[in-house]
Amino acid sequence: MPLGQRPGDKSESRYCGIETEFHDDMPQLLTYSLSGGFDFVVAPLVDPSYRPSIRNNNGGATILPVSASDLVLNPSQWSSHVVGKISSWIDLDSDNEEVRLDSEITLKQEIAWASHLSLQACILPAPRRGSCGNYARCVNQILQGNNMQLWLRVPLEKSEIVDGSTDADCDLTGGRMLDSWECWNTFRLLCEHHSQLGVALDILSSLPCNNSVWRWFGEPVRAAIVHTNSFLTNARGYPCLSKRHQKLITGFFNHSVQIVISGSLLHNIAGDSGDEVLPAIDDDSPIEALPARHELKPYLDYVAYLYQRLDPLPEQERFELGYRDFLQSPLQPLMDNLEAQTYETFEKDVVKYSQAAEETGRKLKVYAVEKNPNAVITLHSLVKLEGWEDAVTIISSDMRCWNAPEKADILVSELLGSFGDNELSPECLDGAQRFLKPDGISIPSSYTSFLQPVTATKLYNDVKSHKDLAHFETAYVVKLHRVARLAPTLPVFTFAHPEYSNKGNERYKKLRFEIPLDTGSAVVHGFAGYFDATLYSDVHLGIEPSTLTPNMFSWFPIFFPLREPLYVPRGSTIEVHFWRRSGATKVWYEWCVTSPSTSPIHNSNGRSYWVGL
Amino acid sequence: MPLGQRPGDKSESRYCGIETEFHDDMPQLLTYSLSGGFDFVVAPLVDPSYRPSIRNNNGGATILPVSASDLVLNPSQWSSHVVGKISSWIDLDSDNEEVRLDSEITLKQEIAWASHLSLQACILPAPRRGSCGNYARCVNQILQGNNMQLWLRVPLEKSEIVDGSTDADCDLTGGRMLDSWECWNTFRLLCEHHSQLGVALDILSSLPCNNSVWRWFGEPVRAAIVHTNSFLTNARGYPCLSKRHQKLITGFFNHSVQIVISGSLLHNIAGDSGDEVLPAIDDDSPIEALPARHELKPYLDYVAYLYQRLDPLPEQERFELGYRDFLQSPLQPLMDNLEAQTYETFEKDVVKYSQAAEETGRKLKVYAVEKNPNAVITLHSLVKLEGWEDAVTIISSDMRCWNAPEKADILVSELLGSFGDNELSPECLDGAQRFLKPDGISIPSSYTSFLQPVTATKLYNDVKSHKDLAHFETAYVVKLHRVARLAPTLPVFTFAHPEYSNKGNERYKKLRFEIPLDTGSAVVHGFAGYFDATLYSDVHLGIEPSTLTPNMFSWFPIFFPLREPLYVPRGSTIEVHFWRRSGATKVWYEWCVTSPSTSPIHNSNGRSYWVGL
Repeated sequence: MPLGQRPGDKSESRYCGIETEFHDDMPQLLTYSLSGGFDFVVAPLVDPSYRPSIRNNNGGATILPVSASDLVLNPSQWSSHVVGKISSWIDLDSDNEEVRLDSEITLKQEIAWASHLSLQACILPAPRRGSCGNYARCVNQILQGNNMQLWLRVPLEKSEIVDGSTDADCDLTGGRMLDSWECWNTFRLLCEHHSQLGVALDILSSLPCNNSVWRWFGEPVRAAIVHTNSFLTNARGYPCLSKRHQKLITGFFNHSVQIVISGSLLHNIAGDSGDEVLPAIDDDSPIEALPARHELKPYLDYVAYLYQRLDPLPEQERFELGYRDFLQSPLQPLMDNLEAQTYETFEKDVVKYSQAAEETGRKLKVYAVEKNPNAVITLHSLVKLEGWEDAVTIISSDMRCWNAPEKADILVSELLGSFGDNELSPECLDGAQRFLKPDGISIPSSYTSFLQPVTATKLYNDVKSHKDLAHFETAYVVKLHRVARLAPTLPVFTFAHPEYSNKGNERYKKLRFEIPLDTGSAVVHGFAGYFDATLYSDVHLGIEPSTLTPNMFSWFPIFFPLREPLYVPRGSTIEVHFWRRSGATKVWYEWCVTSPSTSPIHNSNGRSYWVGL
Repeated sequence: MPLGQRPGDKSESRYCGIETEFHDDMPQLLTYSLSGGFDFVVAPLVDPSYRPSIRNNNGGATILPVSASDLVLNPSQWSSHVVGKISSWIDLDSDNEEVRLDSEITLKQEIAWASHLSLQACILPAPRRGSCGNYARCVNQILQGNNMQLWLRVPLEKSEIVDGSTDADCDLTGGRMLDSWECWNTFRLLCEHHSQLGVALDILSSLPCNNSVWRWFGEPVRAAIVHTNSFLTNARGYPCLSKRHQKLITGFFNHSVQIVISGSLLHNIAGDSGDEVLPAIDDDSPIEALPARHELKPYLDYVAYLYQRLDPLPEQERFELGYRDFLQSPLQPLMDNLEAQTYETFEKDVVKYSQAAEETGRKLKVYAVEKNPNAVITLHSLVKLEGWEDAVTIISSDMRCWNAPEKADILVSELLGSFGDNELSPECLDGAQRFLKPDGISIPSSYTSFLQPVTATKLYNDVKSHKDLAHFETAYVVKLHRVARLAPTLPVFTFAHPEYSNKGNERYKKLRFEIPLDTGSAVVHGFAGYFDATLYSDVHLGIEPSTLTPNMFSWFPIFFPLREPLYVPRGSTIEVHFWRRSGATKVWYEWCVTSPSTSPIHNSNGRSYWVGL
């Protein structure tokens, strides 16, 4: 049964599983686990002593020694309650060819059996060495012809490297893997970021530093396997977790990662489970003598306690759940006319209007200039409804070509996009400032775009699924969720209004992001973009993470993808170039990376993505 | 006029140019240069003192201060004899925005003017700093809308790094560029290997080590600009070049690279050009007072001497000129039936037959097993013609299913492909060894494939031009020419015959190539493949470069491309995985790289390229 009822949370992280040893009576194992409160088991499907070559040499049967016939459970039971665990002895990169071949045969047989059982997912054992080329090749082959989710088991560990050590210590190819993220990264690059390939993270008693752990929130982590030996003991003898572990588990709950408990009972709780264990009677099959009450229930109870302790999702967050990591094309309000529904959504976002409100006590004369003839109809109704006929004159015209009858003191506009200038506010306001008095002011008076590099496997895969270049050279509006932010944002382009310098609206900026040393290596799938606007004086409004305006939902961030994931070795600087460019009929961005390696220039001449003037 | 007549050489390296300063009388400059024996001039097209912003400030004319009206020469003269030289002051990555904008305007204006003049190529000044992002972005834009060849000027220099120095010395981003190849590589990666982007190498008085220089033979080097100060002086006072320079120039001649002489007269040759200089009379225009005889003729004469000293191309090499760097799909002799012409070509290659001939003095009984029914007709005619009816029995059958009436002592086959087993010799001979006596022998008795990493910009661009994944996952037969071999070959797969072990013909091999330290960084576009076969005992035959059988032309090498060029930092190891895999109807290879960075697995499940069984 689920860990609890958290309003708004419909994600898979409500379910908690248990890892088991091989057991040849699957129904009994499942009953024991489910009645103990677990939602599913992670169980080996084949006897771990099985080796294909030994059986062949014996000339024996070709029937796999499986944990149960498919008939003992119905397909929906198999599918909902069992995650297959591939034999952990396999080693496809062994120097011993027989081990390698046995491993490949076994892996394929077990996945085929799991498919036959209708399982949704199997967990693959962690690669045994830095070089996992043959393992990845075989998994990649399986992924091509199968709908099964495959979760590569990876320990959450990273040896901290003492500063000043030589790079040889980081050598992936030298043997021992210091950073398990590196191993995962190699594996999934070989498999081309296949969307069915995920991660099952083994959570151990000690955790790497936060920067290093956070990388995983941009990765397709499907399960976190928490070992009983990573639990502490509270004053009453019950298992509990360190503050850092608690924070991590909360992070998993918020990122749809399922918890799996693994290991043996290490907390002997007086008067509780200890007393109720039914000792094995039949010595020949001790594994089948399962206690009446699940011995790992105290660990599950603690995880459920953490889940139930979570704050409910705020209403706004619940509303936006469906937008998480969903790529949208940015609006083109200048070239296109927006629909009434879009206006309605924006007007619900009261924060930005209250931020902009002014009470001067002065009599106002307002010209409302609107280029969308449909919106003009709405404006007339609104003016009539509010009785503003004396103060407001509605002008159905593009501000860039309207001939104003008089000059204005204040020019108020709301033309900002997620990336500030990306809905062509600079071009519109440059055109409109003709009718501003020489000492007139513009609200907003300036705005700046910001960028930061992110790991975002989900977004990368969604862009890739279009199978063309154009989608990799397009910016998207997206509520970023399963994303790892690798460095603080840096400012990109600033526009101030009014602008009389005649310097134009093309821009070029080179940015250098320093990845903190303790992050380790990372992969960059693209850049998250934001804006911050100064409305007037010290009143600002924006979505840049460190200064964002609270409770404002008109703008999600923007995402600029990279055509190829950028591998960033530990301690690297990422050097990025962004251009804002314009032609007769359009404005567009180009971008590229020149360090730690060089990408092509993206969206050259606006070939893939542009905003119409 | 050309440097000389070398039989068989129709390449552009017969032509030698001269670099000049800005001169406002182009016809005079051209007459002077051509009458001096040069074939073309590399000349600035615009007055180097021109700056767009200064002219704008003056409110002056918008006419560019060009070297000559387009009308003073006809289009074919401009096109054949003038390479444009873009103003060397431009700096598109300056921190000074005005310089940057002036540079961009000038670059675009000059290229537009050069296009108007019908020039074939312009030389771009060398990037001034490691970071050349904006320069590359602008050149990339120009390349999108223009047929002009653009040759980026790059000095042939590389500071040798003392062993044991820290990697910070190699830091591209730190300022000074130590290795000019790095600069070129960054620039062309930003421009996505555009096929109109080439290199003009500046040859200086000192040369980097050979391994580092050889990298350039895999790059699109279009011109080598040899400075007069890199010439030595011979006993008679004439200019000459060091042995290493001579070898380099010879390399350029053999790779269609044009030589350009640059600089001032530094050899005062008594009784020769010195006497004939006509002194300038008009002080106001000294630059126009050109000597009657070209003062740099002695340098041209020396280059012509080097050219004329070259050995003529061997007949076989001349025959194969058209195949240089031309990608061909490998034959599929098992699945397809070859054409008579193909057999004819192979039979002209006498070396391999003489290598295989045996004189035993024994009476032979030959079964000639041929699966191509068309070739069987030819065989019957041949047997009749030669009067071999008593000795030879022709069998029209696939050797894999023929039921032999008796067992053979010797099985002779010629089923080898460029990569040894790639025409499925293992599968054919495994099928045929049924009719070999237990102590019978196979000729060949074994064969091994070999691989080495190569830089091959031309091949990469040709593969890329197909704009699909499949061509990047296909192996090609190709006479490698404009290729830099980055490491010695390593053996891959070996097959021995007869083979009774039942281990099958699938293979997996992990290879580690060490790039010599003094090479510096490099880029790998793919892997060149070869074979060596042991026919019997110590008689071998093959195309592996270090042991190749001379004067044999049946096999060109094979080329396995990489989907993305692999950047290899100085001192790196390249770790590569190759698989030979087979299914019911086909055999294929898969390959990937896992160090220094990780590629996807190429040709997974033979999705793009396979050999039919």
